[in-house]
Amino acid sequence: MIWCRYQQGDMTSFGLVEGDVVREVEGTPFGAHVATARTRKLAEVKLLTPVTPGTFYCAGVNYRDHVIKSAARRGVAPVFPTRPDIGYRANSALIAHGENIVKPRDAGPAFQYEGELVAVFGKPARHVTREQALDCVLGWTIGNDVSERGWQASDRTLWRAKNCDTFKPMGPWIVTDLDPRDMTTNIRLNGELVDSFATGDMIFDAATYIAEVSKYITIQPGDVMWLGTDGLPRDMKPGDTIEIEITGIGVLRNGVVAEA
Amino acid sequence: MIWCRYQQGDMTSFGLVEGDVVREVEGTPFGAHVATARTRKLAEVKLLTPVTPGTFYCAGVNYRDHVIKSAARRGVAPVFPTRPDIGYRANSALIAHGENIVKPRDAGPAFQYEGELVAVFGKPARHVTREQALDCVLGWTIGNDVSERGWQASDRTLWRAKNCDTFKPMGPWIVTDLDPRDMTTNIRLNGELVDSFATGDMIFDAATYIAEVSKYITIQPGDVMWLGTDGLPRDMKPGDTIEIEITGIGVLRNGVVAEA
Repeated sequence: MIWCRYQQGDMTSFGLVEGDVVREVEGTPFGAHVATARTRKLAEVKLLTPVTPGTFYCAGVNYRDHVIKSAARRGVAPVFPTRPDIGYRANSALIAHGENIVKPRDAGPAFQYEGELVAVFGKPARHVTREQALDCVLGWTIGNDVSERGWQASDRTLWRAKNCDTFKPMGPWIVTDLDPRDMTTNIRLNGELVDSFATGDMIFDAATYIAEVSKYITIQPGDVMWLGTDGLPRDMKPGDTIEIEITGIGVLRNGVVAEA
Repeated sequence: MIWCRYQQGDMTSFGLVEGDVVREVEGTPFGAHVATARTRKLAEVKLLTPVTPGTFYCAGVNYRDHVIKSAARRGVAPVFPTRPDIGYRANSALIAHGENIVKPRDAGPAFQYEGELVAVFGKPARHVTREQALDCVLGWTIGNDVSERGWQASDRTLWRAKNCDTFKPMGPWIVTDLDPRDMTTNIRLNGELVDSFATGDMIFDAATYIAEVSKYITIQPGDVMWLGTDGLPRDMKPGDTIEIEITGIGVLRNGVVAEA
């Protein structure tokens, strides 16, 4: 099942993607809902971020090759996380599939994408085991954890480096009934395949993160958890188009523009 | 004007506190609203967190004496922030005035309060100057940035140290038309005054943080910004009552209980 959120004219709704049409749903995927008889052509609606989370979790560093190559680029030894310590991102930075990533006027050249698998929660979770953890996941979407490496190195927090307006593209939709161990992430910059990795090749998998977080925190329906990227991202510049494909989910495509 | 959010039976509403009654308001303080003729006794309603923010900003380290004393306790040199780099906290941790802070089973003894002034935004802000910054603030409330110092030292992020369920009491309400430079924060543990400091004696004041954030991020109505604590907090244990008073706003009072 493919859940989306979309706008047509003044109307905003959740919907189910069925081939090239969207079926309007009354309610939300996180609570009571009913599919209606009303459909629209997918090409004629504007897709929105599939959810605005109550809490926006992000694993950060979660693939070995990314740790090794990022450390080598900085000329330091790689440091692998020893525990699944989750981090956070800001809702204020979210944009939808098809919207533009805006490069701030004073951002430096190391302005980069990070293609990430995203778990979208459908049920509350507290004190769940690894075996139970994926039962609270409604489905999966795609995130692009846009990062300005200069600010990531210089600032006391990740506020500018990771959370400027438009730095968190998420979408295009949520796909249910997928196995996160059986996906490939392909990243294309202006149509060129610049990275391809096994999505499931994480240091700590989704079930491990969910079980660990749930020891201390109640995960809520509508919350999202971004699960990190692999490889060594390249720089993006205004005029570029960045696509994150995860097999079984789809493609998250965003243009890059300069701040006016 | 004093804005609150409250529950009575199944009904949740914003309201205006007028002496010992609450006047029900249709709508929200962040958009269209109208005060009704319906009032209830303040003592008979349950106060809720005055807002659930879209983005939850937190300044973290923002008072000189707190930096000096915290560093001395750890036996290290004090490090003052050189720029107003904002941080974030998680909505999942919010509780209201009067609700209990739950100490996790495996939390250590250094389980501490931090009494903080909180700006609640009423208007969007982007590229505002320091002089314009406070125009986007609807009013002020109180936060208790509960912290587990062991996890704060050991973990890669602040997820457990600062964001376990119940670790972010906020309230009791939002007071408008106050000058943040003209307040005193008094902290009482089991009725004993354990700290008292000039609320406005910050390293970077609210206007500076707001102007800086707004260079990169659109602050939205309903967002909140917590502004740090001074002094050297003491440890809390189950059975304690912690009160954060900020003059002109009121008292945020919470009990401490052990995780069942």
